[in-house]
Amino acid sequence: MNIPRTSYPRIVIIGGGFAGISLAKKLSKQEVQVVLLDKHNYHTFQPLLYQVSTGGLEPDSIAYPIRKILKDFPNFHFRLAHVNEIDTVSSKVITDIGELKFDYLVIASGSKTNYFGNEQIKANSMAMKTIPQSLNLRSLILENFEEALLTSDLNERNCLMNFVIVGGGPTGVELAGALAEIKKGILPKDYPDLDTRLAQINIIQSSDCILKGMSDQASQKAEDFLEKLGVNVWKNVRVTNYDGKTVTTNTDLTFETATLIWAAGVMGATIKGLDGAELITRGNRILVNEFNQVKGFDNIFAAGDIACLVNEEFPNGLPMMAHPAIQQGEQLGDNMLRLIEQKPMKPFEYKDKGAMATIGRNKAVVDLKRFKFQGVFAWYVWMFVHLFFLIGFRNRMVVFINWVYNYIRFDREARLIIRPFKKKLKK
Amino acid sequence: MNIPRTSYPRIVIIGGGFAGISLAKKLSKQEVQVVLLDKHNYHTFQPLLYQVSTGGLEPDSIAYPIRKILKDFPNFHFRLAHVNEIDTVSSKVITDIGELKFDYLVIASGSKTNYFGNEQIKANSMAMKTIPQSLNLRSLILENFEEALLTSDLNERNCLMNFVIVGGGPTGVELAGALAEIKKGILPKDYPDLDTRLAQINIIQSSDCILKGMSDQASQKAEDFLEKLGVNVWKNVRVTNYDGKTVTTNTDLTFETATLIWAAGVMGATIKGLDGAELITRGNRILVNEFNQVKGFDNIFAAGDIACLVNEEFPNGLPMMAHPAIQQGEQLGDNMLRLIEQKPMKPFEYKDKGAMATIGRNKAVVDLKRFKFQGVFAWYVWMFVHLFFLIGFRNRMVVFINWVYNYIRFDREARLIIRPFKKKLKK
Repeated sequence: MNIPRTSYPRIVIIGGGFAGISLAKKLSKQEVQVVLLDKHNYHTFQPLLYQVSTGGLEPDSIAYPIRKILKDFPNFHFRLAHVNEIDTVSSKVITDIGELKFDYLVIASGSKTNYFGNEQIKANSMAMKTIPQSLNLRSLILENFEEALLTSDLNERNCLMNFVIVGGGPTGVELAGALAEIKKGILPKDYPDLDTRLAQINIIQSSDCILKGMSDQASQKAEDFLEKLGVNVWKNVRVTNYDGKTVTTNTDLTFETATLIWAAGVMGATIKGLDGAELITRGNRILVNEFNQVKGFDNIFAAGDIACLVNEEFPNGLPMMAHPAIQQGEQLGDNMLRLIEQKPMKPFEYKDKGAMATIGRNKAVVDLKRFKFQGVFAWYVWMFVHLFFLIGFRNRMVVFINWVYNYIRFDREARLIIRPFKKKLKK
Repeated sequence: MNIPRTSYPRIVIIGGGFAGISLAKKLSKQEVQVVLLDKHNYHTFQPLLYQVSTGGLEPDSIAYPIRKILKDFPNFHFRLAHVNEIDTVSSKVITDIGELKFDYLVIASGSKTNYFGNEQIKANSMAMKTIPQSLNLRSLILENFEEALLTSDLNERNCLMNFVIVGGGPTGVELAGALAEIKKGILPKDYPDLDTRLAQINIIQSSDCILKGMSDQASQKAEDFLEKLGVNVWKNVRVTNYDGKTVTTNTDLTFETATLIWAAGVMGATIKGLDGAELITRGNRILVNEFNQVKGFDNIFAAGDIACLVNEEFPNGLPMMAHPAIQQGEQLGDNMLRLIEQKPMKPFEYKDKGAMATIGRNKAVVDLKRFKFQGVFAWYVWMFVHLFFLIGFRNRMVVFINWVYNYIRFDREARLIIRPFKKKLKK
């Protein structure tokens, strides 16, 4: 990679997610050279991916060009690259576009879907961690309806109109709610020939409540909201397999479905060279100290989902969410500048901003530190917070207009099969 | 295809473009059954595809779900299907999802890129007739810049930053202008390491003027605008071949480029069964009479780009543009209802609404019947007209916001490589 060396120390950041971007912003206009590597040329606002999958938002409005975020920083370089390996001995990263030496390295490679080793589920299910995946899911949902129209086999039609979501976290809950609203608002208008009663939305949670990380109150209310929307909530059920047609579970329960959406877990997206067992902990994350430093290295850090930073409240590591990532990125930026100036670093302190999830129109749950509420007001808060954290004025405007429009019209206009997922409709 | 027969006559429309949609709208709430077939589930507003290719607009804002356009019409059916053949003897269409009998058939299958038989150009060039193609081009342009950063071979870098557009019609001209604005406004900010002077935009026209269908005044002014923007306009040059690297022409001129965009011609997208030589005329279009009827058939019609409808002013057929298609669709709707009621049909009269093209910010050319103008006002008119004809309130709002934003900020934020076109960047 032909990036010229300057007199400044070079900080290489792997990943342009919440942690990587907030770190790079902190380092902008400082006396360091920053090289950010990502396999996409855009930052993805992951909390809204489910709205892309369900036709409520266009993908471009929740993505933002990484080059643009940091364009005013002269000593910043972006490269579209996939990092294959980290060579800690000679302090370099090995990528598909060549090698790059670093003085400091920050791994902010995020997380990937965790199939818990089940290859069949991996092969047959849909995930929703990236924009391309979300677009594939959007296509598949619509293709299913188109196909359901064509078949005269009732079993097949049932199967095509049955959606199974595994995982009762925010992603699963938000997607289930959105699908339920499609069933109610879009299906009868778009597919008058289809018996919409056949459309079933199932959400399966292995433990005894959904939104496990939130308060009991939020969890209970979210379940009520889902049931009100006609979603079947299955608790204490663990999916054991899916062959592309039948979902089996650890109970007698089985589901016949053409669409299994796997939102049951994520794991750190580790990189070869820093994936040794002594570094990796629960959830395939890299254990870091309170300065986000990787054990055994002074100049290698990890932040965001990939980093396992423990404190009293979170002995298994901070939650794999946007907030901890943003805060770590910012704090790490300060700390790296301190380190370079040979000043002592400050330990990271997580400020818990709470959690929220939306289930449908006028239906959200919000847990703040002192204040928990659900319903319409929570829904407004959810929208405001998401608009606020979205990057880019244009994106905010476009998302806002879409929301207003969708709200008034009970509609989702981005129901477009632009990248067909099934190669061909069955005859 | 399991579409139940009703007591109404069944009209099958092939294609949800301007002609097909305006026809279907005319037939809505009438005593006919309409089945619209398209290989996409959305209508594409083709005049703005070049803005998708150049990151100015998101694809979803110029596409509209076909089901939604016609959702209030109870006797309307849409099927996502590719029509393979028309069987005129037994009055049925044969598609990839089965066969369908028709009482009346309207072919509105539009046009496709015309490579004039050159398979090498077809294999190596980019076209811009559909949203997926436009997204591929968007990715390729951005991937080229990313790759240009990596190479130390100056020839290769030149090649990657050299864009050759073949065809000086509205598509070519608008794309050339947009690329020139990217060179000026985006490249220096996003790629400070690249010498933007290397970026060349060439437009090649085989005849002696660009925008051939428009007035001399418009043509000349468009050329001035392009040159002001730094585009190289090559007239009286015909491209003879392109092997993926070198463009050869009928003159001594050659171009080394990684990107050839072929906007040099379109041809009717005929369908097997109605593609006999006796029906097909110039430009691979189906010759129709003044009622859009295909020769030899009472119940088979063609409209839009695929139809060659001649009149005194256009002895080679009406221009392959949105306006004639919309007008034909509307008129044909009336005529079909007349035909069914056994009333005489009215001959189609083309109302020439003029033509326009935009070259860049504040730069457009407009030819109305009595009034020709260029510059800022033309640019506003161009925008207003395009917003007006765009389908859907949300799309209009989103496009409008993008335009305002892009105008104020000299920006194009949708520069996202969501569907990478080159499989992998070269090492």
